[in-house]
Amino acid sequence: METHTFFLHLLIILLSARLFAELAVRVGAPSVIGELVAGIVLGPSLFGILQPDEVLRLLAEIGIILLLFDVGMDTDVRRLADAGRSSLIVAIAGFITPFLLGFLTAYSLFELSLLTSLFIGGTLTATSIGITVRVLTDLKRQHKKESEIVLGAAVLDDVLGVVLLALLYEFSVGGGISLANAGKVLLFVSLFFILAPIMARIISLLIKRFDSVSDIPGLIPTTIVSLVLFFAWLAHVVGAPEILGGFAAGLALSRRFFLPFGMALRTDPDFALRIKKEMRPIIQLFTPIFFVVVGLSLNLHEIDWSSPFIWQFASLFLAAALVGKVIGVFFIKESRFIRTAVALAMVPRGEVGLIFAELGRTSGIFNNEIYAGMVIVIALTTLLPPLMMKWFYGHYRQPS
Amino acid sequence: METHTFFLHLLIILLSARLFAELAVRVGAPSVIGELVAGIVLGPSLFGILQPDEVLRLLAEIGIILLLFDVGMDTDVRRLADAGRSSLIVAIAGFITPFLLGFLTAYSLFELSLLTSLFIGGTLTATSIGITVRVLTDLKRQHKKESEIVLGAAVLDDVLGVVLLALLYEFSVGGGISLANAGKVLLFVSLFFILAPIMARIISLLIKRFDSVSDIPGLIPTTIVSLVLFFAWLAHVVGAPEILGGFAAGLALSRRFFLPFGMALRTDPDFALRIKKEMRPIIQLFTPIFFVVVGLSLNLHEIDWSSPFIWQFASLFLAAALVGKVIGVFFIKESRFIRTAVALAMVPRGEVGLIFAELGRTSGIFNNEIYAGMVIVIALTTLLPPLMMKWFYGHYRQPS
Repeated sequence: METHTFFLHLLIILLSARLFAELAVRVGAPSVIGELVAGIVLGPSLFGILQPDEVLRLLAEIGIILLLFDVGMDTDVRRLADAGRSSLIVAIAGFITPFLLGFLTAYSLFELSLLTSLFIGGTLTATSIGITVRVLTDLKRQHKKESEIVLGAAVLDDVLGVVLLALLYEFSVGGGISLANAGKVLLFVSLFFILAPIMARIISLLIKRFDSVSDIPGLIPTTIVSLVLFFAWLAHVVGAPEILGGFAAGLALSRRFFLPFGMALRTDPDFALRIKKEMRPIIQLFTPIFFVVVGLSLNLHEIDWSSPFIWQFASLFLAAALVGKVIGVFFIKESRFIRTAVALAMVPRGEVGLIFAELGRTSGIFNNEIYAGMVIVIALTTLLPPLMMKWFYGHYRQPS
Repeated sequence: METHTFFLHLLIILLSARLFAELAVRVGAPSVIGELVAGIVLGPSLFGILQPDEVLRLLAEIGIILLLFDVGMDTDVRRLADAGRSSLIVAIAGFITPFLLGFLTAYSLFELSLLTSLFIGGTLTATSIGITVRVLTDLKRQHKKESEIVLGAAVLDDVLGVVLLALLYEFSVGGGISLANAGKVLLFVSLFFILAPIMARIISLLIKRFDSVSDIPGLIPTTIVSLVLFFAWLAHVVGAPEILGGFAAGLALSRRFFLPFGMALRTDPDFALRIKKEMRPIIQLFTPIFFVVVGLSLNLHEIDWSSPFIWQFASLFLAAALVGKVIGVFFIKESRFIRTAVALAMVPRGEVGLIFAELGRTSGIFNNEIYAGMVIVIALTTLLPPLMMKWFYGHYRQPS
């Protein structure tokens, strides 16, 4: 691509993200909806001005890992651990139910093949941690109890999603499934998630020491971005989703980070604050690119809207996707307010569902009609919950 | 490219830029030398870990226009105008002399073809504004008189370089040269340079007004980066180098911007300061990428170091490149201190020379040996002057 064309595309993305976000807020929706809509409008769904090409996709990936880094920095590790039990229940129930509902509907009702049905189940499982977190932040609920539960659940959900994808991939190429392999992935990911924040913490202390002896300006932006990139890369190497690397790096730099045995790794609040301050503009620059690119990737144009099959198919799976995620909250001991908030926040599928659906299409497991149906389900689960959450918080107050 | 590979490449670039910059400062060189050397070490010249691929090249381009934007913001327009006469002399003399010396040496001494000789002359003309400005900033001389002269001269130089490239390109494809076309390019570029800062100024006032009514955080990073990208794109459209767009946008936001007739466009120092503060981490993140990519693009491995022809060829053209740039300062009325500083600062060729040489090679005008010789000349003119400037400022004081 020529440089000036790239400049033009990037500025169109940044400006339209901003304009649509402002419009979204004016009509009472969270700003992330505006950014997603900007992508849908610019992309193949509507005007076809932009394609989600490689460069944009890579910039978007930087955006999402930086967003998760930001979320990690704001997370209170102790509270995340406290919410652990509830998170686990919400994650597991919200993972298994949509998978089973999706699979059974596809296999018995629509009589699709075993592999296709399994893939449809997979597409319905994973919550989009990025969209969920952005909505909670847009609504200024990111430090509330329900957010800790949702965050923990969404992270676990992502891990389970990766394990499932690994299993389904094996099944689709080899025909069999090795539980040993799945266990290995799970083990690696869990180890990563325990060790990465400690490692990142040690590195951040090195950066701080380096900071006091370096004369060249610009240490924090380059080294902290490198730290985030490194853990995203490392996450991939051990088989975990890259965004978990960003989240782990953020947790490590959180002012509320604690280690049971690590008093020597205590936080310097001034340094954490400086990192927060210098990273903010960089994060604010990159994250809208991610949400616009998610919108660009949704090609609503490919859908034959007049086909009755599509509507029937999409509504049944939409129901499976909604019910499947909501069920988990009936098993946790929280107020009805928190349970409702958690249920709504777990619904968005966003980019994770799209990755599954895309994989299904490119490997020939989904035909165009099934793919189109899944895209409708993903679009609705992505666009509706933010509006519902906004409405919910506007009409109900947390009982204190 | 896969996402995690890209993350790895980017973090290698950011970290090695930092490490080599720190080393450079320790041994008494400006930090930009470290970043260039990092690129040479990582690139095909030495370890071959990284290639200057499309994504890195585009990120580097963002880096250079943001650097020029930063320089523009720090520029005192009135002082730039005051230095105008000296800048003009330095630019024109420093443009014509290396071109003629290079052309004549190639044509009469080495008996190369007319087109090849013209291209060699072209390769020797343009000063790398990026490297020059970074060195002056590294040495904390960016607000001194010599910097105003050099900045003005380097900008004019870039404009002349573009006109020359357009002419040579026409000549190489059609055989003839149209002065009308060259005049048109010059007119467009000049108009752009007068109108762009005024336009950018008006847009920045709109952004400021918008800022007071918007609730969504992150307005400045996205809109100001968009502004810079827009003017870089616009510069390209009118036929000017993209970096001039970045510079023009920066000038417009400078706290010392003035318009003879535009009191209504007066600067709000608080807003300018906020822009400066929020843009700084973004600029610090992107600029090292540019200098590392310049280093990556220098393939010293392709050079047959044992060929005596290469050495003879390179030393003669190095002399032409040095003498050609220095001559201009004899015509300006400044102290010997300032004249020496200006002369040294005008020498670096960097990426501009590489673009010329690359174009020469890909269009078959340069064979491998001539290309290699040119690369040596560019490498030396890029790496030596920063060291010489550092030494010069360390040993001489400006007479006051």
